[in-house]
Amino acid sequence: MRASTGEFLAEGPQAVREALAVGAALEVFATPKFDDWRALGQASIWHSVDDAVVADIADAVTPQGIVARCLSVVRTLDALPAGARLVAVGVDVRDPGNAGSIIRAADAAGADAVVFAGDSVDPLNPKAVRATVGSLFHLPIIVDRDLIGVVAALRERRVNLLAADGGGDTDIFDADLAQPTAWLFGNEAHGLGTWAAVADLRVAIPIYGRAESLNLATAAAVCLYMSARAQRKN
Amino acid sequence: MRASTGEFLAEGPQAVREALAVGAALEVFATPKFDDWRALGQASIWHSVDDAVVADIADAVTPQGIVARCLSVVRTLDALPAGARLVAVGVDVRDPGNAGSIIRAADAAGADAVVFAGDSVDPLNPKAVRATVGSLFHLPIIVDRDLIGVVAALRERRVNLLAADGGGDTDIFDADLAQPTAWLFGNEAHGLGTWAAVADLRVAIPIYGRAESLNLATAAAVCLYMSARAQRKN
Repeated sequence: MRASTGEFLAEGPQAVREALAVGAALEVFATPKFDDWRALGQASIWHSVDDAVVADIADAVTPQGIVARCLSVVRTLDALPAGARLVAVGVDVRDPGNAGSIIRAADAAGADAVVFAGDSVDPLNPKAVRATVGSLFHLPIIVDRDLIGVVAALRERRVNLLAADGGGDTDIFDADLAQPTAWLFGNEAHGLGTWAAVADLRVAIPIYGRAESLNLATAAAVCLYMSARAQRKN
Repeated sequence: MRASTGEFLAEGPQAVREALAVGAALEVFATPKFDDWRALGQASIWHSVDDAVVADIADAVTPQGIVARCLSVVRTLDALPAGARLVAVGVDVRDPGNAGSIIRAADAAGADAVVFAGDSVDPLNPKAVRATVGSLFHLPIIVDRDLIGVVAALRERRVNLLAADGGGDTDIFDADLAQPTAWLFGNEAHGLGTWAAVADLRVAIPIYGRAESLNLATAAAVCLYMSARAQRKN
């Protein structure tokens, strides 16, 4: 089943529970073992169906017996909180698993919002949604192709703009991360490229061994956690 | 193509280059654009073939024109270095992508070895190999099902044993990580379970937001980098 524009599918118990909790689930298709969840979804149309129907609707290789058609949770730049202290910005992020993992890591690190700018993958792509493990219902997910506009909105909110850049001149472990911060994370293959120049600082996670680089989502998690930690120490 | 026991396939330019560099490539199948790489692979049998042949041999959805049949790089516990200061131990890690990502993150953080214990996935699984992006040729990869034996070997080498445990009582940001350390990382669904008790300390990455947990490979990267950093500060 393809959801219509702006709608998306949340699959599996954890994602559907979160969708129900925030009132985003329009319609739920679930096997009878989830019948006692109906009380959670009073605003949703509930279809008690068998495994084959769920499997047919769900995109997952191993569907978990429940799937919900949800209202889009994607927001515009206006949803960027005025007092944001930690924001993750994906720029031209192409892999849906990475997009979802960035949302999950941002949520875990207590970030205030996640923004996808430039030619990034749709964070409501089924693989991305699965990788968030419910976190896309926990904080504002903003999509805006215009990175210049995103940068302007972040500057208005007076956050430091840090570029996660393997070739950056500042070691993340030496950087002052205590101020409100937006991290820019670039494309899997090409990084931020010239976009790194819009940041106040280009920050590298040092490679102590012989790996060429870190995975994008892994690097994002390290950056976000280092910021979260520095902000909480003060 | 299934490699025979102990052998495995390295796919794509980066992995094959590393395999050639350490002399692990027995046989290379490559499109003509890689012909000038033959000099790197003097010990290897070289087959100049077309894309379709590479695609047929490779497991990848988007084969990259070159694949090598390699000697196993998996070692026994004897390969654990005597002076190891940072070791990653996967316990019952089931997802090949996670196994590979742990190897990549361990390499990046400068770890001395990666061990897979218990019922862990084969780190030479094609998906795992791809996720390492060549890092499996950079440090000893040890497979030993017997976690008790692994723990004994680590204790002999006088490293602290830390369990990465979401329910652990020590916050990673408060832990003393400067000593030589082996991190135990558990199963994706069930964590370390009772195995956490064999560690000296059960250490949690705090969840500052509303995410239920971090992805295994992400958590491993944060733990390994916090250790690497603490060890280098002293």
